[in-house]
Parts: sequence; structure tokens; C-alpha cells
Amino acid sequence: MERKDRRRADQLRPYRIHRHFQKYPAGSVLIEMGNTKVICAASIEDRVPFFLRGTGEGWIAAEYSLLPSATGTRSQREAVRGRQSGRTQEIERLIGRSLRSVFDTKAIGERTIMIDCDVIQADGGTRTASVTGAFVALVEACATFYEKGGIFPVRDFVSAVSVGIRACGDPALDLCYEEDSQAIVDMNVAMTGAGNFVEVQGTGEGRPFSRAELNQLLQLGEQGCRELISYQKDVLGGELVWLVGREG
Amino acid sequence: MERKDRRRADQLRPYRIHRHFQKYPAGSVLIEMGNTKVICAASIEDRVPFFLRGTGEGWIAAEYSLLPSATGTRSQREAVRGRQSGRTQEIERLIGRSLRSVFDTKAIGERTIMIDCDVIQADGGTRTASVTGAFVALVEACATFYEKGGIFPVRDFVSAVSVGIRACGDPALDLCYEEDSQAIVDMNVAMTGAGNFVEVQGTGEGRPFSRAELNQLLQLGEQGCRELISYQKDVLGGELVWLVGREG
Amino acid sequence: MERKDRRRADQLRPYRIHRHFQKYPAGSVLIEMGNTKVICAASIEDRVPFFLRGTGEGWIAAEYSLLPSATGTRSQREAVRGRQSGRTQEIERLIGRSLRSVFDTKAIGERTIMIDCDVIQADGGTRTASVTGAFVALVEACATFYEKGGIFPVRDFVSAVSVGIRACGDPALDLCYEEDSQAIVDMNVAMTGAGNFVEVQGTGEGRPFSRAELNQLLQLGEQGCRELISYQKDVLGGELVWLVGREG
Amino acid sequence: MERKDRRRADQLRPYRIHRHFQKYPAGSVLIEMGNTKVICAASIEDRVPFFLRGTGEGWIAAEYSLLPSATGTRSQREAVRGRQSGRTQEIERLIGRSLRSVFDTKAIGERTIMIDCDVIQADGGTRTASVTGAFVALVEACATFYEKGGIFPVRDFVSAVSVGIRACGDPALDLCYEEDSQAIVDMNVAMTGAGNFVEVQGTGEGRPFSRAELNQLLQLGEQGCRELISYQKDVLGGELVWLVGREG
Amino acid sequence: MERKDRRRADQLRPYRIHRHFQKYPAGSVLIEMGNTKVICAASIEDRVPFFLRGTGEGWIAAEYSLLPSATGTRSQREAVRGRQSGRTQEIERLIGRSLRSVFDTKAIGERTIMIDCDVIQADGGTRTASVTGAFVALVEACATFYEKGGIFPVRDFVSAVSVGIRACGDPALDLCYEEDSQAIVDMNVAMTGAGNFVEVQGTGEGRPFSRAELNQLLQLGEQGCRELISYQKDVLGGELVWLVGREG
Amino acid sequence: MERKDRRRADQLRPYRIHRHFQKYPAGSVLIEMGNTKVICAASIEDRVPFFLRGTGEGWIAAEYSLLPSATGTRSQREAVRGRQSGRTQEIERLIGRSLRSVFDTKAIGERTIMIDCDVIQADGGTRTASVTGAFVALVEACATFYEKGGIFPVRDFVSAVSVGIRACGDPALDLCYEEDSQAIVDMNVAMTGAGNFVEVQGTGEGRPFSRAELNQLLQLGEQGCRELISYQKDVLGGELVWLVGREG
Repeated sequence: MERKDRRRADQLRPYRIHRHFQKYPAGSVLIEMGNTKVICAASIEDRVPFFLRGTGEGWIAAEYSLLPSATGTRSQREAVRGRQSGRTQEIERLIGRSLRSVFDTKAIGERTIMIDCDVIQADGGTRTASVTGAFVALVEACATFYEKGGIFPVRDFVSAVSVGIRACGDPALDLCYEEDSQAIVDMNVAMTGAGNFVEVQGTGEGRPFSRAELNQLLQLGEQGCRELISYQKDVLGGELVWLVGREG
Repeated sequence: MERKDRRRADQLRPYRIHRHFQKYPAGSVLIEMGNTKVICAASIEDRVPFFLRGTGEGWIAAEYSLLPSATGTRSQREAVRGRQSGRTQEIERLIGRSLRSVFDTKAIGERTIMIDCDVIQADGGTRTASVTGAFVALVEACATFYEKGGIFPVRDFVSAVSVGIRACGDPALDLCYEEDSQAIVDMNVAMTGAGNFVEVQGTGEGRPFSRAELNQLLQLGEQGCRELISYQKDVLGGELVWLVGREG
Repeated sequence: MERKDRRRADQLRPYRIHRHFQKYPAGSVLIEMGNTKVICAASIEDRVPFFLRGTGEGWIAAEYSLLPSATGTRSQREAVRGRQSGRTQEIERLIGRSLRSVFDTKAIGERTIMIDCDVIQADGGTRTASVTGAFVALVEACATFYEKGGIFPVRDFVSAVSVGIRACGDPALDLCYEEDSQAIVDMNVAMTGAGNFVEVQGTGEGRPFSRAELNQLLQLGEQGCRELISYQKDVLGGELVWLVGREG
Repeated sequence: MERKDRRRADQLRPYRIHRHFQKYPAGSVLIEMGNTKVICAASIEDRVPFFLRGTGEGWIAAEYSLLPSATGTRSQREAVRGRQSGRTQEIERLIGRSLRSVFDTKAIGERTIMIDCDVIQADGGTRTASVTGAFVALVEACATFYEKGGIFPVRDFVSAVSVGIRACGDPALDLCYEEDSQAIVDMNVAMTGAGNFVEVQGTGEGRPFSRAELNQLLQLGEQGCRELISYQKDVLGGELVWLVGREG
Repeated sequence: MERKDRRRADQLRPYRIHRHFQKYPAGSVLIEMGNTKVICAASIEDRVPFFLRGTGEGWIAAEYSLLPSATGTRSQREAVRGRQSGRTQEIERLIGRSLRSVFDTKAIGERTIMIDCDVIQADGGTRTASVTGAFVALVEACATFYEKGGIFPVRDFVSAVSVGIRACGDPALDLCYEEDSQAIVDMNVAMTGAGNFVEVQGTGEGRPFSRAELNQLLQLGEQGCRELISYQKDVLGGELVWLVGREG
Repeated sequence: MERKDRRRADQLRPYRIHRHFQKYPAGSVLIEMGNTKVICAASIEDRVPFFLRGTGEGWIAAEYSLLPSATGTRSQREAVRGRQSGRTQEIERLIGRSLRSVFDTKAIGERTIMIDCDVIQADGGTRTASVTGAFVALVEACATFYEKGGIFPVRDFVSAVSVGIRACGDPALDLCYEEDSQAIVDMNVAMTGAGNFVEVQGTGEGRPFSRAELNQLLQLGEQGCRELISYQKDVLGGELVWLVGREG
């Protein structure tokens, strides 16, 4: 069945990453995937979590939040409710793991890079857009303290995208909120520049899914991630792209 | 002493209000006062706080938050800490009172207008920028359910601005963060289109202040508020300005 | 490399499900997967979450907890800390989704089946053991209110198992804690009696993984789930197995 | 319009400060303003907040609470609700700022003076009574560690009072609860012995207020604060009054 | 060994109950037992806890708190910490049970009597002083809605006192803080006017205690409770004493 | 009146303690008292509470929890509610005090023994079963670090049991839930091997109780505790029994 915005099944929504979006953080971008808009910032802090103190190793931690005004119906502010939801924490763990999978935490010493993903408009795919945008902010931030001849802590690219099986039974790439809320299978895929998987999270929301369907979804996800990594490279520009994977 | 950005004592920073900033809320603007940037959204909910149930009267409630990445040094997310700070709640109460002072809560029936002020960049004056921006979002939101011939619930304009006595002893309008953090007196003024005060909150942070100094500050605040109300009118345009104060 | 307990790569740990483990809940089992032991209880409550009131539809919700004494090093009690961790909530969501994927929530009216998974000994794979055990408790519970000739709300079997790539690079089924904590890829698979996937969650903890490795892991997971479903049938016995999927 | 208790517009309610009210704190008074009664205690602690550690500077922090039985209708205990309200925190910040404005935090080394204001009967003006009473407790407490020839950390007197425009449109000093709850403008003023302002917080609860009205209110507030400072001196007695402002 | 204040082993500290201590609650007293001072208030609310709705029966609930300034070393405010301690809740449960044991909750309809015990000075025995004082406030409160010829809900008197075995091994009545903190056995006894026990809570803090010692302590507790009930009668006066136990 | 399960008034329910119930904690038992079943674990941690740091002294702390599925009607998980109830904390304090009363905290250095009592089935008397079971786990745990010739920190045995006056007016030992919920007097007694009391907590839930009734209850409690201590000795076996009270 045709998609509402007439996209092909394997077509991403129009996407764009604005760099240097905020003034103060070491790295900051605004990523847009269709109507989904997320501010991704990377700040450097001279401390590490308790379990790393004294090891000489650093850390990446991610936090995620929806502005109450970002969603179709206003959502409650987590600071007012007094705690983060399970969904929020699940997303924060996904973003953190995805970035750490291409990151050499030993190369930054005892520093934490705090990733803040604040969604200012939510139309599906906010967690995967957060990964894709946060990667760019992370590179920006690491470039601020990189010293020539050293190891650049970001070892490879990483991007993420959602895929799913729509209500009509067709697989599709990069679902908007309306498609997502009716999807019978929902999957998030994060992938590296080298073409390997970092995260594969598929859920049969409406019904279980077959191995053949899983393969189709992985195929679409892989294609979407590749296209986004290619765009990350454009946005970062030659000098920063050159840094990724530098070993001294 | 000359101000760092060479502004006159009675000069506002460059300001701008972008309307229709988000897709979903009934009203949404981005207000910029120099480097301070706040998203102000107004959402309409069909419920009222407990103390108004059954009275036929509505309410305006405001929430305020800083993105962690908005400040010079990253600030902790209140949802992670598990509660809002006293400062946050004080600001929320100020925004709510300022808007309600020009609002006819009886004219909207049992509805709540939720005002969300989310600061994406903080360089001083975020609470007063929130009032000024939220007013525009409020008018946008009320226009969506206004019916011809009815009473428009917004009775007058309201804007707010900070004033203070700088470290050098000179009074000044619209302090940036650097000026504010060193100020010896700090004051927030909110004023209506008719030129009356809605809030006057002055604090001698560094030393007490005399009646003469208070008068100077009130004078500057009044001038700043007038200029901002004039700009609110430009931004809203004739049709919406015409609605403010309509009585049927 | 040989596994510590000399298991084959595709071999489950010794498993056992004790039925009727507690006296009060409608369904209750103790599941053992090697040294991992989880009490899974299913209780029926005559209420539904807010979003289902008045719809005539029911719900399954899951809660998960580790006894502090269940782990190698004592873990802090979440009731003392005052909130559930992100990990706990992620697991609760996984258990709930897995069971709901084979459940007809409309067939039970406005009732909630509360699933409680309390781990009394944790040696890896507690979340997947919870799914496998909870399924049996769920069937026990639904049998208590099933009326002859009606639709049995459990539509198919579901089990779950962990798979991963061990530190040595070999893929393996059903990792114990020691294997899991050193694994470079970690995946949980939940599958139905019909052989379809309900959940696939794979994470490259140590390094990204290739499509070929993903295929190997899916293969092992599928095999493990099939074996566990076969055992669930043994444990439930003919009469209860007969109920699963009954349509009147 | 005549006031209910036949007071003149510029007349304070009967006031009284009982010194040495509790046995254990370094300073402790009971202040009565009409039916409003507040226990104000000052305790000295040998630690400072995080941001002052190692600076050699001290701090004053204030806490405020209403006994549930203090109000016309019993109010909920904040310890039961699990958090302090925005109103409570706003009051605590006001008390702390007012006292710090006449206090030399460097003169006490790394010590914190904790001010506890516990309202045992509330009939309007509890926050301003807290400031006026806490000042006396603060002087009592500082006298316990003052050494002859040193700098006395309290540099000047400070008192506070509420003023407002009553429902009938008349300005009035020191509103009781009934007047306050119907007031159209509500203002708190804190002032020093030298006649300068420390806090001016005015809010148009019922309607905005003009500059002329603001001037009338400031005039009344100034008069009330002067009278209270004169009484603070009587209560403290010559020896302690002599200490205030001592510079060695 | 002689007691520090030269009291006999079976002698209470000087005690006093001030009635009508606060203006707003239906009943309010200040009780002093030596240096221990507690405000006990009884407020009537037209609602009952969830488990009593629709039963026609009422309830008594008690809350207890220490002012931070009440103790030798300032104690942290529970509203700031965000939760009540286990000790506080234990005391609240004791006060509520003691009063309910002589109360006919059916005789007040669906009303709750909220008992607030706020300790303004703590020198040992605050929980038992709370019971003794709260009883008087409870009678005061019930008298406000008693109608001639009806059943008076308070069926008998109740008082409470602490007893213990001091560090020197001697049993003693009504321990002050210094004695209590060194006591090897600590016991609280609550008793009715008819001479029956309502609560007996003995703990061997320093060492276990024999049956003979238990008997000595019960003997002292009984004597102390009798004396306090006799004083409660003096304080209430003939008319209110006459009401206690009235059956129509 | 005859008891439902035909027990004599002075008869315990069938009891059993399974040792080495869990794999990881230093001590772990499952205690059964009729249908009441509690897992009691003792874990050793190399840290002490704040107030003991640097004193060379150790501590015993106890935590208690009901599995939601342990009770007739499912009970809410405290980790979900976000805080422990007053009842839970009261029980934890009772367990901790009872064990500490026979324990030499100086003999273990700066270590904490964490006692976890997790009720997997609740049919009355869970807190006293927790004390009786936890004692055995405590001895198991202390044996793991005991060095020949040293002081064994457990000085004496301790057990606990509930007694009460049933609805029919008869006193009885070891009440099951049904008896307990209707009891008019409820008492918990903890006693040492030497026959002394550690805790006596009696409450007149339904009506006050006389001194004669108290004596009967103490008599029953003493008998029950003696029988349980005798069984603790059987279960521990000669070698461990020999350790209890060893002084080098």
C-alpha cells in the first residue's frame, strides 16, 4: 500500500543535520528526520561514574527527554512526575550503548562525555534520530580536545534507523508516528560505517514475525543506516571525517 | 561603565520572536533575547485543577525547564534528580501569575492552558523572556478556539524584562548572564499594555538599595516592557492584536 | 573453546519448572535454568489500566525483581533506593510484550493479569527464564476462569532464551553469568510455538557484529526456544496444552 | 473602608518577640504578629554547602514549615507528601537572602547558620514575621561565638512586613489572612536599619497596579519595617544591639 | 544510683498540659514532661481512608514530627529529605493505635480525626508524651461536635509513659534523654483508665532482660500512667471528664 | 474454642528450616512456619554505616519484603510505589534489634552483616519467622570468617514467635493469618537461649488487656521460643552450636 507521504518503502524522510546549534556545549546539532526534530548535545565533564574511578578510563552517558510540547497530545514533564519512565531509560541505554560501541573510552582518560538528546518535535523515530545526531555532536566534541598525533576516540561511524511492518503488511523504512503507532512489527537498527550491527531490536507489537520478514527488515535497516552515514560524512566535512578512526 | 556589548544602559539586546515554531501545540514561539533562546508553547487541555472543578472557570499553568545543554556549564536534568528545584518552581509561579493577571479565566470554561517554557540557550533573563514569549503563544492558542462575537480571554498585553544595578553601580536594562551574575541588585518587572505593574521583584544580592535606585530601575523596566509590547503587536499582526481585549 | 560446564554450543543448561509453587496466586511456578531460579506468579485483578477503562478489553502487566541475596555480590533493594532501575523496567516491558504477543486481551474482559517474576538466584538469563516460566503460570491462571466452550485467551506458546558470542568468538546458547559478563555480543530471542519471532534484541557489547554472526545467533535462539516450548508442554500436561489456542 | 480589627491603614498588629524560646539552638525566639506565631531558631553547623568548601567563607540557609495544625483548615504535612511545595521553597529563599544581605559570611569562617522558621499559627504575614524573628535569633546565635575585638558578622538590622491593596481598594500595612486572601495587590518589603531595601516583591493578584499605588505601598512598608527594627532593638537590649555592625 | 535530677525511681518529671494552645484546630494542647514539649492538635476532617468508605465508620490517624530545632544537635527536616524515617512512622502507628483502643470509631460516622504531634523540644519520652497530650486534644475535639444524649466516642482515658533500666541497672520511670540514650532496657507502656494495657513495647537495647525485670518495669509504667490519667482529669475538668464513656 | 487446624493453644504450627537455600550469600535458609515461608539470607559487606566509621565496630542491618505474590490478595511492590511502608520499616528495625541483642558487633571489625528476609508465602507471623530463620543464616555467615581461637560474634541464641488473644477470648501461640486478623490482642516475643526477653511488643488491637492476660501471653511466648531454639540447635548441628557464645 502506498505510504501516506508517497515515499517508497525503502526511502528515508527528508533529513538534515544543523551543526553548532547551541553556543555552550562542546558539540551540538539539531537533527531533523521529517517532522522529528532533536537537539543533540555533547558536553565534556572531568569526572567518571563511580565504577571507573582510578581506572584511567572514560565514559559516555546519554540522557533523553521529550519536551512536553513535542508530541501531538502534550505529554507530562518527567521532572514534575518526579521520575523518568521506563521508556526514557530504555532509550538512554540504547543511545549510550550505540555510541560506546564505536568509542575507545580508554583514549579520553577519566572524562565523561554527556550526550543530551532533547526532542523538540516528535513524529516517530526519535531514538534512532538521537543516535544519528548524537554521533555528529560526539565527533564535534572530541575534536575540541584532540591533540595532533593522538588516538581519536571515535573509531568508526554509527547511525540508526527504524524499520517496521506496516498495518497493511508491507515492510518500510523510517516510519513516521502514524505508521509506527499502527505497525505490527517495529524494529530499530544501529549500524557502523564498516557495515556491522551494533543494535538490533525487533518487537512483534501486533503479531509475531517470520524469519523471512526479519531478513527484509534487516535489509531495509542496513540500507537506511548506510545512507545516513554517508550524510554524516557530508555534514562533518573532510577534516573531521579524517579524524574518525585515527590511531595516532 | 560601558557595557561589554556596547549597549546603552536603557537598551534591550537584539530580540526576535519566531511564531508557529512547533507543529503540535495550539500556540508555539521561539523567543530570542540576545543569546537567550526559549521555546514557549501553549497547549489546551479539557480539565482544570481540583480546586476549580465544577466552577465553570478555567486556568493557566506554566512549566519551565532548562535543557541541560543550555547553560555554560552543563546543568543536571531535573527529571534525573527526581524533583524540580526551588528556583524552577519560583519561575513557574511567576510566569503563571503574570499571564493570569491579564486573562479572564471565566471566559474559557473548564479548560487549562498549559504554558511550557523550555530554555534551549540561557544567557540571562530566561524567566522574563519566558513571560514575553509565552504571551504570544497564549494569544495564538486562544485564537484557535475563539468564536466570533465572544469574549476573547486575553484582556491586555503583558511583557517582562530584567533590570539591575551592575557591579560598577550603574543601573541597566536587560542584563546578560555575565552582568547578572555580578549584579548587586537584580529586579524583574512585568507590565501590561495599559502601563500598570503585574510583578515587581527586586532583590539586593550584593547590597541593599535605596529608594532612588529603586525608582531608576522601575523607570528602565517600564521602558523595556513598553518596547517589547510594541514588538509583540508587530509579531502578532493586526488580526490577533485586534482580538486582545475584545469583549464580544 | 570448550564451555566451562562442558556444554555444547547449542545446549541448554539443565532446566526444570515446578508448578503450583505458591499457595495464593492463580498461577505460580519456580523455573530453574542451571543455577538461575525465578518464581513466576500470575494473579488476576478485576481492574485495567486507565487507557483501557470502558473498552471491555483486558491487560497483562509484568513486574520483575531480584532478591538482594540472589546475586554474587548482594544487590541493593529497589524499594530502599526508592525507584526501579532502567534495567528492571526494560525487563518488565520485555516480559509483558512477549506474553501479550500470544494473548487475546479481548477474551478476558476488563481484567489485568499481573505477572510477578522474582529472581531468587541469578546466574544469567533471568529475563528469558522469566518469560518461559511466566508463560506456564499464565496458562495455569487462565485455566482457573476458563469456561467450557469459550475462547481461551492464550493463543500460542512462547518461550525465550539468551544467545551470545563468547569472549573467544564462539556463538553459544543460554549463557551463564560468567559467560554473559564477558560476551562480546548478547542477544535475547523470544519465539512462539508456530516458530515466529516475538522479540529479537541483540547488542554488540564488546564489538559490532556481522550479518553472518547474527544469523548464527538467530539459529541457536530458535533451537533453544523450540526445546523449551516442548518442555512447557510436558509440564503443563495434555489438558492444559489442549486449551492453548482454543477458539470455542 | 474600616479594617475588621479597627486598625489604621498604617498600623501594625500587636507584635511581640519572646527570646530564648527553645533550650537547644544557639538562638531561638517566638515571634507573634497578631495571631501569627512563628518559632525562629538559629543553629550553628561546622560545615558549608559544596560550593563554599575550601573558601573560608560561611553561609546562612533557611528552612520554613507550617505545622499542619497552624492553619484554619489543616494543611498536609510536607514530609508525608514527600516534597516541599514551590511556595515553601520560595519563602525559604526569601528568608535566606534577606538575612544574608546584612551578613558578612566571610566573618564566620566555614560555618553554616541554619535558620528554622516553624509556623505554629498562621494568620497572614508568616514569611515576613519569619524574617523579623529570625534576625533576632541570628544575633543571639552569633553572640555565642563572638570574640571581643572581632568583626561581628551581622552588619545591620533587617525586618520585613507585608503590605497590600485591600479588596476595597485601600492600601494597608500588615495584612491578616482574611485581608490577604482578598487583596488585589500583595507586596512584601524587607528593609535594613539604614533604610535601604533588601527585597521588594509585589504582585497584582487581582489586577495590575499603577506606579502611584506602588509608591503608597513602599511608603507603608518602609514605615512598618522601621517600627519593627526599633522593637528588635528593644528586645535584644543594649549589649547585643551594640554588637550589630561592630568591625573590631 | 541517684538520678541526675534527684528524682526517685518511680517519680515522673514535672508535667503540665496547657489547653487551647492553638486557635484553629478543634482540640490543641501543649504538653510538657520536664524539658520535653509537644504540641498535640486534633482536627476533624469529613473524609475517611479508602478502606472505610461507605462503611459509616470513622478513623483516627496520627502524624508526628520533630522540629529540627527541638533536639540537642539540629536534626534534618523530613520534608527536605523527602520521606519520613522508620522511627517516625513507628511512632505515628503507636499513637494512632493507642488512641483508637479507647475510641468508638463507629460513633463519629465517616469522619477522620487527624492527630498532629509536633515536638518543639525533645528531652526523651516524646512518643509517650504525645499519647498523653493527644488524648486531651482528642476529648476537646470530640466535645465540639458532641450532641446531648449521644454516644461520646471516647470510651476511656489513656496515657503513656516510658520506663527503662538505666545504665547502672536500676529500673526507672519517665527517662530523660540522657538516661534513655544510655538505658539497657527501654519500654513504653500505654494504659487505660480502667487499668488495662493498650501497648507494651519493651526492647533490650543493651542486653536481654529477665521476667523479673519486666515485672518491675510494668509496675513502674502502671504507676506512671495512673498518675498521668489523674492529671488529665484535672486538666479536662468535670464537664469533659463526665463525657468520657458516655453511652447516651 | 478449638483452633481451625485443631492445634492446642500452646502448639506451634509445623516448622522447618532448610539450610544453604541460596548459592551466593554467606548464610541462607528457607524457614517454614505452617504456610508462612521466608528466605533469610546473611551477606557480609566490608563497610559500616556512617556513624560507625573509624570505630572498629561492625553492624547488623535487616531488610524485609513481601513478594507481591506472597499474600492472599496480591500486594503492591514497594519498589513500584517508590518507598517502604511504615510496617516494613518497623519489622526491619525489630529484626535488626533482635539479632544485635545477642551479637558482639565489636568482634567483627568494620563489617556489616546484611540480613535479607524475603517472604515468599505469608500466612501470619512473618516477622517472627524472619527473626528465627535469620538467626540461623547469621550463624552460617559468621562461621565463614570465624578463625579458630577467636571470639565468635554470636553470643547466644535468639528466636521469636507471635502470641495473641483470639476473637473468642482464648490466648494462643503462633497465630496463622486468619487468627491474627481477628485477634483482639497481638503480641510478638523474642527470647534468648538463656531465657531472657529481647523484645516484647503487645498491642490491644480489639480491646485493652489485663495484667493477667499479659502474663498468660508471656508464658506462651516463652514456651514457643524455647521450642524454636531447640530446633535451631538441631538444624545447625553440633559444630555450629558449639561456636555460639565462644569467647576464644
